Amino acid sequence: MRESVLREQWLNWAPILKVLSVLWLVLAVFMMVPWLVLVIEEEPDARAFALSTGIVLASVAISLLATLRITVSLKPWQMFLVTTLSWVSISTFASLPLVLGAPQLTFTNAVFESVSAITTTGSTVLSRIDQLSDGLKLWRGIMQWLGGIGIIVMGIAILPFLKVGGMRLFHTESSDWSDKVMPKTGGIAKATLGIYCGFTLTAMLAYWLGGMAPLDAVVHAMTSLATGGFANSDASFGAYAEQPHLLWLGSLFMLMGALPFVLYIRVLRGARMALWRDQQVHGLLILLATVCLLLTLWRMWLGTPPFEALTHVVFNVISVVTTTGYASDDYTLWGPMATVAFFYLTFVGGCSGSTAGGMKIFRFQVAMLLLVSQLRFLNHSSGVFVSRYNGQTLTDEITRGVVAFSFFFFLTIAGLALGLSLMGLDFITALSGAATAVANVGPGLGDIIGPSGNFIPLPDAAKWLLCVGMLMGRLEILTVLVLLTPMFWRR
Amino acid sequence: MRESVLREQWLNWAPILKVLSVLWLVLAVFMMVPWLVLVIEEEPDARAFALSTGIVLASVAISLLATLRITVSLKPWQMFLVTTLSWVSISTFASLPLVLGAPQLTFTNAVFESVSAITTTGSTVLSRIDQLSDGLKLWRGIMQWLGGIGIIVMGIAILPFLKVGGMRLFHTESSDWSDKVMPKTGGIAKATLGIYCGFTLTAMLAYWLGGMAPLDAVVHAMTSLATGGFANSDASFGAYAEQPHLLWLGSLFMLMGALPFVLYIRVLRGARMALWRDQQVHGLLILLATVCLLLTLWRMWLGTPPFEALTHVVFNVISVVTTTGYASDDYTLWGPMATVAFFYLTFVGGCSGSTAGGMKIFRFQVAMLLLVSQLRFLNHSSGVFVSRYNGQTLTDEITRGVVAFSFFFFLTIAGLALGLSLMGLDFITALSGAATAVANVGPGLGDIIGPSGNFIPLPDAAKWLLCVGMLMGRLEILTVLVLLTPMFWRR
Repeated sequence: MRESVLREQWLNWAPILKVLSVLWLVLAVFMMVPWLVLVIEEEPDARAFALSTGIVLASVAISLLATLRITVSLKPWQMFLVTTLSWVSISTFASLPLVLGAPQLTFTNAVFESVSAITTTGSTVLSRIDQLSDGLKLWRGIMQWLGGIGIIVMGIAILPFLKVGGMRLFHTESSDWSDKVMPKTGGIAKATLGIYCGFTLTAMLAYWLGGMAPLDAVVHAMTSLATGGFANSDASFGAYAEQPHLLWLGSLFMLMGALPFVLYIRVLRGARMALWRDQQVHGLLILLATVCLLLTLWRMWLGTPPFEALTHVVFNVISVVTTTGYASDDYTLWGPMATVAFFYLTFVGGCSGSTAGGMKIFRFQVAMLLLVSQLRFLNHSSGVFVSRYNGQTLTDEITRGVVAFSFFFFLTIAGLALGLSLMGLDFITALSGAATAVANVGPGLGDIIGPSGNFIPLPDAAKWLLCVGMLMGRLEILTVLVLLTPMFWRR
Repeated sequence: MRESVLREQWLNWAPILKVLSVLWLVLAVFMMVPWLVLVIEEEPDARAFALSTGIVLASVAISLLATLRITVSLKPWQMFLVTTLSWVSISTFASLPLVLGAPQLTFTNAVFESVSAITTTGSTVLSRIDQLSDGLKLWRGIMQWLGGIGIIVMGIAILPFLKVGGMRLFHTESSDWSDKVMPKTGGIAKATLGIYCGFTLTAMLAYWLGGMAPLDAVVHAMTSLATGGFANSDASFGAYAEQPHLLWLGSLFMLMGALPFVLYIRVLRGARMALWRDQQVHGLLILLATVCLLLTLWRMWLGTPPFEALTHVVFNVISVVTTTGYASDDYTLWGPMATVAFFYLTFVGGCSGSTAGGMKIFRFQVAMLLLVSQLRFLNHSSGVFVSRYNGQTLTDEITRGVVAFSFFFFLTIAGLALGLSLMGLDFITALSGAATAVANVGPGLGDIIGPSGNFIPLPDAAKWLLCVGMLMGRLEILTVLVLLTPMFWRR
C-alpha cells in the first residue's frame, strides 16, 4: 500500500523531472561555448566551465536514466511546477561558473547574478566587468539570451494555456496543448527560434560594423534582443555614449525584442501589416513617442543640444520601458521630474509574447478600457458596456485576470520593498529596488542601485529577496503564487 | 428661441445654486462663532471674521433671492455637480478669514489651508500656531469639523446613490432618494448629526478633564472626530507627548471618527452587536492591531521602553490609517522600515461612511476576495466563484466599481506626483505629498513635508496641485472625473 503511494507520487513527478533535465541539457550545451573560447584562449577560467558543465551533465544523465521509460504528458498543475522549477533550477546551475571561476563570487552573489541574467533583469554585482575573461562575458550574454527565448516561449505557449493574469487574450493555436495541433505548436516554436536567432545575428553584425569589438558585438546583441541589459563595461552602454549610431542601433534592437514575436511570424507568413495593426504595438509605440518627446523637450529646455538630448532620451526610455536596463547616462541627474518619470516607466514593460518584463502594455490598455467603461456607467448608470481589445471581446474572465495580476504585481513590489527596508535599505533604494526586480528592468534609483550604481553593497538577505522578486516577476507572479495555495497540493 | 435655451439652462442650474447657498448659510453661521469669541476677547481679528461672514451672507442672500421660486429636486447629474461645487465653494469662502485676518496669508496659502481643513486632510502652512488668536484656532477646528460631518453625509446618502467606486455596497434606505423614504433619510441624517455632536462633546470633556486648556480641548475634539488632524501647536499632538493618557484618548477619538456612523445608529436603535459584526470594522481593527504589534516590537527591539513604544506606535498608526494626520513624534526617525510602513498606511484609510479618507478598508477587502477567487480559478480553471461581503453578494458592478476606483486612485496620485516633481520637488516629497493629499492624511515623508515639517516652503503651483489632489481624494475621485467627460455635458 505504502509503496503504491510512493509509486504514484513518482509517476506524478517523473515527467516534471524529465522535462527539466532536457532543459538542463540545453544549458549544458550552451555552457560549452564559453568553455571552448576559454580553452582556445588558454585562460584558467576554462576549468571552471568544464567543472560546471560536468555537474550539469551529470544531473541530466541521472535524471534522464531515472525517467527513461516515462512518457511526458503534462497536466496543468504539472506545467505550473515545471515552469517555476525550470527557472529556479536553471538559474542555480548557471551560477556555477561564477562561483568556480575567476570572479570567485560568493554563492549569494553568484546566484543573484545568474537569476538577474536568466530572468533578463540585468542588475549586476560585478564591477570591473571589462577585465573579466572573454568566456565569462560571453556567459553573461548567453544566460540572458537563453532567458529571453525562454520567456517568449512561455508567453506564447504556456501562460495563455494556464490562463495566468489575463494572458488568455493571447490564446492561439500555439497555446493549445491538445494532440491535434501539436505539429502547429512545433512549427511556431521553430519559427520563433528562427526569428530570434536571425535578429540576434543581424544585431551582432550591425554592432560589429558599427565599430564594436567582435566579442562586445556578440554579447550586446544577445543582451539587447533578450531585453536583458548586461553590458561589458561598468558604464553599461555609456561606454558608447560618444557613438550615437550605436545608441540608435541599441534602441532599435531593444524595441525589436519587446514586440510580440507571433506578429513577426505572421509578417513572414505574408500578413505584412500584422505588426502595424496590433493594438499592443500601437500602445507601446504611442507611449514611447510621447514620453520621448516630452523628456527631450524637457532636456532641451535645461540646455542639452537637441540631437544629444533625443539620442539619450530615446535610448534610456526604450531601455527602461522594454525592461532591458542599459544606461547610456545617469538619468537620475536629469532632475526630479525625470527620476519620477523613470520610476513609473519601470512598471510598464513591453508587449506580451516578447522578451520584455514589467506589467505589459496590454494590461494597461485593458485597465484603461475598464476605467472608460466605469465613467460611462456613472454617466448613464444603466446599460452594459462591452469592451473589445484587438478585435476580441473582453470577457469578465480576462478582465478579472488582468486586474488580479495588477494587484498582485503591486502587492509583490510593496511586500518586497517592506522586506528590503527591514534590512536597512533607505526608502528610495527599497522601493525602486523592489520595482526594478519584479519588473525585470535592472537599475533602480538612488545612489546605491541607480543607473550608475551596483547591487554589490546590499546585504545578502536583500539579494535573496531580490532574487525571489525577479523570479516572481518573470513568472508573472500568479504562476508562483498558485504553488503556495493549499488548494494546489490538495488536488 | 435663444431666450428659451437660456431659461432652460437657468432651470438646470438654479436648484444647484439653491442647495449650495443653503450650505453657505451653514458656513456663515459657524463663522460667527470665532467672530463672537474674538469680539468678547477684543481681538482685532474680529473684523476679519465680520467681513468674511458678511461676504458669505451676501452671496447667500443673492443666491437665495434669485432662486426663490425654484423647487429643489436634483437629478443624478446635478448631484454630481452639487457635490463637487459645494466642497470647492465652501473651501474658498472658508479661506477668507485667513486672508483678511492676522496671519495675512497669501490667497494661495489661505486656500491651501482651508482646502486642507475642509477636506479634513490637516496639512498646514501655518507656523507658530500657538500664537494665533483663539478665534483662528477655533476656526481651523470648525472647518475640519464641518468637513467631517459633510463627508459622513456624503458617504451615507450621496455616493452610494451615485454608485461611485463600488459604494453601492452601502446603499441603504438612507441613500434612496425616491420620495417615499425621504422621512427615513431625514431621520438618519438627524441621528448621524446627533451622534457626531455627542461624540465631539464627549471628546471635549475628556480632553479637558485630561488636562488640556479649554480651547485646546475644543479644537482637538473637533479635529480628532473629523479625523482632520489640525492641532494647536507646531509640534502637532507632540505637545502632549509626555501625557500618555491624552495620546490614548486621542487614539480612541480618531478611531471613533473612522468607524461607519450608520453602525452607531444601529447600536443606538438596539442592535448592540452591529459594530462587532461588521466586516469593515473587523478589517480595520485587525489591520491596526497587527501593524501596531509589529511596529511596537520593532521599536522595543531598537531600545524604546515597551509602554512608550506602544503609546506612540498606536497613536501615530491610528492617526495615519484613519487619515487624521496628528503626529506625536517624528516616526520617520524610527528607521527605514517605519518610513516605508507609514507610506503604505497613508493609502489605507478608515471605513466608508465615516470621516476618514484614503482608499477605505472595504476596497482592500473586496480586492482581496478578488485575488483569492483568481487563485481558485487558476487551480480549477473552471467554475464560477461568488464572493460575499458583509452578507451581500459581490456583484460584478460593485467589483468593477472598486477596481476602477483603485486604479483611478493610484493614477491620480501618480499624476500629481509627476506634476509636483516638475515643480522641482524631490522624489520622496513629490510621491508622499501626492499620496498624503489624495488620501487626505496630512503629513508626508521627507525633510520638508514630513511629520515635523510644514507645507509653506513649497512653490505656489505645487500648493494648487495639492489642493486639487485633496479635493479629488475627498470626493472619491470619480465624482470629479465624471464632470470631465464629454458625455456628462452631452446629456
